[in-house]
Amino acid sequence: MPDEFDVIVIGAGPAGENVAARAVRGGLSAAVVEENLVGGECAYWACVPSKALLRPVDLAAEVRRVPGLSIGPIDAAAVLARRDETVSHYDDAGQVAWLEGVPATFVRGRGSLDGPRRVRVQEPGGTSRSLTARHAVVLATGSVAAVPPVPGMAEARPWTSHEVTAAKAIPGRLTVIGGGVVACEMAQAMHGLGAAETTVLVRGDRLLGRMEPFAGRLVAEEFANVGIEVRMGASVTRVERPVPGGPVTVHLASGPPVEADELLVATGRRAALAGVGLQSVGLAGDRPVEVDDSMRATGVAGGWLYAVGDVNGRNLLTHMGKYQARLCGDVIAARAKGEPDDLPGLRDIGDGYGAPQVVFTDPQICAVGRTEALARAEGFPVRTVEYDLGNVTGAYLLGDGYRGRAKAVVDTERQVLLGVTFAGPDTAELLHSATIAVTAEVPLERLWHAVPSFPTVSEVWLRLLEAYGL
Amino acid sequence: MPDEFDVIVIGAGPAGENVAARAVRGGLSAAVVEENLVGGECAYWACVPSKALLRPVDLAAEVRRVPGLSIGPIDAAAVLARRDETVSHYDDAGQVAWLEGVPATFVRGRGSLDGPRRVRVQEPGGTSRSLTARHAVVLATGSVAAVPPVPGMAEARPWTSHEVTAAKAIPGRLTVIGGGVVACEMAQAMHGLGAAETTVLVRGDRLLGRMEPFAGRLVAEEFANVGIEVRMGASVTRVERPVPGGPVTVHLASGPPVEADELLVATGRRAALAGVGLQSVGLAGDRPVEVDDSMRATGVAGGWLYAVGDVNGRNLLTHMGKYQARLCGDVIAARAKGEPDDLPGLRDIGDGYGAPQVVFTDPQICAVGRTEALARAEGFPVRTVEYDLGNVTGAYLLGDGYRGRAKAVVDTERQVLLGVTFAGPDTAELLHSATIAVTAEVPLERLWHAVPSFPTVSEVWLRLLEAYGL
Repeated sequence: MPDEFDVIVIGAGPAGENVAARAVRGGLSAAVVEENLVGGECAYWACVPSKALLRPVDLAAEVRRVPGLSIGPIDAAAVLARRDETVSHYDDAGQVAWLEGVPATFVRGRGSLDGPRRVRVQEPGGTSRSLTARHAVVLATGSVAAVPPVPGMAEARPWTSHEVTAAKAIPGRLTVIGGGVVACEMAQAMHGLGAAETTVLVRGDRLLGRMEPFAGRLVAEEFANVGIEVRMGASVTRVERPVPGGPVTVHLASGPPVEADELLVATGRRAALAGVGLQSVGLAGDRPVEVDDSMRATGVAGGWLYAVGDVNGRNLLTHMGKYQARLCGDVIAARAKGEPDDLPGLRDIGDGYGAPQVVFTDPQICAVGRTEALARAEGFPVRTVEYDLGNVTGAYLLGDGYRGRAKAVVDTERQVLLGVTFAGPDTAELLHSATIAVTAEVPLERLWHAVPSFPTVSEVWLRLLEAYGL
Repeated sequence: MPDEFDVIVIGAGPAGENVAARAVRGGLSAAVVEENLVGGECAYWACVPSKALLRPVDLAAEVRRVPGLSIGPIDAAAVLARRDETVSHYDDAGQVAWLEGVPATFVRGRGSLDGPRRVRVQEPGGTSRSLTARHAVVLATGSVAAVPPVPGMAEARPWTSHEVTAAKAIPGRLTVIGGGVVACEMAQAMHGLGAAETTVLVRGDRLLGRMEPFAGRLVAEEFANVGIEVRMGASVTRVERPVPGGPVTVHLASGPPVEADELLVATGRRAALAGVGLQSVGLAGDRPVEVDDSMRATGVAGGWLYAVGDVNGRNLLTHMGKYQARLCGDVIAARAKGEPDDLPGLRDIGDGYGAPQVVFTDPQICAVGRTEALARAEGFPVRTVEYDLGNVTGAYLLGDGYRGRAKAVVDTERQVLLGVTFAGPDTAELLHSATIAVTAEVPLERLWHAVPSFPTVSEVWLRLLEAYGL
């Protein structure tokens, strides 16, 4: 195996894989270094298994809203078995084969920067080797769950997203610390699969704090309906787990402690920077790697270092990491060949509009662009319109008691959408309509002629535009 | 009640209702004449009840693809009861109240043109009255099922969309004549609700003949899977039903006859023109009313006659009729007030791009714009890309054995989409993304930055663009 490549990628999650594939498509050679499974968190311990766990719970809820259908109890063991299938039984042979078919060179080991254009790899056997990049090194190491420094927490060995998505059995009682996407999704999945006593401890006063306020409200209402307890303003002071793997007690600043069979900590993530060797190239080792819109690290002489995905801190979402990776691979190839490197496809404009995101709870929460609060804070001239999704015929036809809400944030000067939020069952696939409208800045006047098909939930588009005055 | 109004609308289906609402919003007075139920076919005998019948069948199929879930047999009586709810038990009191709240004047009776700007109404009691429009008369009489003139057909009193969507019981054996949307949707609904022997007789060689060919193929494959028999090239020569309401036999030009308990004829629709009085204003009485892009009938002096919805023959789809109605009401108001009548919102551009349509079968078939065949026939420079939806992670996570396909028709000169088709479970809400892209002519280069959220079916957008070379 050679020691010199055009591009060396550290990290073989979805972002790293995509950089390599695009760079190779552009005529370069690439090596990808990965210590853990090729495919990354997304494929084994995040998006994929979480969705596999949520799907049956979500679908069962849909069925219960439709008269004439009756559904039996969910067979959790079958769901876990299907989950195992979706993560290829935690075996990355298929992904390695894909990577080698790109073709790229796969190097199993822990990669770290070792000065300009050099990468040191600690191989599993204990040996180490040095690789050199002719054109670029790309950091794609992702992120890790951040566990807050609460007394007793580390000793209790709580679950993070990593463990909960890989659960081999469903705990009867589960405590969840956090109120964001992972906390909401996994509370609902575990509860639906058998965690009859599920308690969600939220530090703030609402769920899904980065979304429009009604989103978290609708999820909280559904949690109340199905019997998931949510405690707002919960400040964790201490965690106790006297017997490893035994019951775990969470003490709060006020109110009674919560005991459960398992504890899930879902309080955010931080860029995976430990041991990456940022200092060897003059960067701070404790902050996401700042990049320009071509994904090139700022503040590194020679312009050979890039960072894509969670590690650059732009948007901690798989699809945005892959997006950044595509343009990064393309821009590296263009620069290597001395071609123009400033074409529209070679700059990150998607992140700036506000990344789309789907929370796969029931109701689904789907948002793209800016919330009203953010748009106002950034000084846009804003008007918003909202509509009750339950009044859309296509939603009503999905089941009895359909509940949901949509909101559009309009830039009144340019008459384009700054942000859109849909909250309700069966809205996940509807989001991309908003992503196109926001990202392409389609004028409202033009959206008026894009007629939603009847009877679908998408008719809410018409209602929002009417509410705006069209 | 006065006899003179600014606008008189004949027909209170969705199109008629919307013309009135928009005209009144524009400051005009409006009367709406309707012989049958206010709300029209869509609300009582088409979109709404058909979706209500299909939803449980569709959802049950989704459940069967998800390991860990088990569903009982569908309770058809409960489904029919829910259907009755969705059609307000065939009572239009709520719709009449809505119309009067617009406010518009509702006139129950059969309306017909009676010379320029005059409408004669045959009232239910046998009396008749005459109304005069100061500005405009709008035809919104919709369409009726076309029953082919086959010997014995009329005497057999077959079901059309009207009767099948209002079924009070599910026949054990059902024969369906036709291969279009109504035929496919109702064959699947009835079969799923208990019509164990369902046979579909198709004159041509495929289902859904106006769609991309793979759409009908996928539906036919699913029909075969669930045991719905499809006979292509079936030419009906004679229908026999010796006892009214008894078994009905359909004879074919070749092959054995088909006997069933009920017969559904779904061979298309024609504009509802009978008794509308077109001849009184100099128009042919047997053709859809030709209109310009402001919905004004061409060939009528004085420009006071408009036609919206099925009766103008542009696109026989509820949502397109409503779209036409909105702009028609607006343009009539603008003209009445002497305001500019040529603003972008006052012209039908949506129909020209190719109306969006969802076929609510399993798999759902969703299309907007032009098929490849149509685009080529119209002389566009075309390249197409296709992608197997089963390879999209978000689709795979919806269930085992997810099958589907997507196709994009690209105008290679302008680099915009001419048409998009999605065929697969859970794609109905995805269609509006394509409707926006096609109608707003968003360049592919811009669509590249609209990142689909992972893991959703909408990631197929990325795959299609990659397949195109982006």
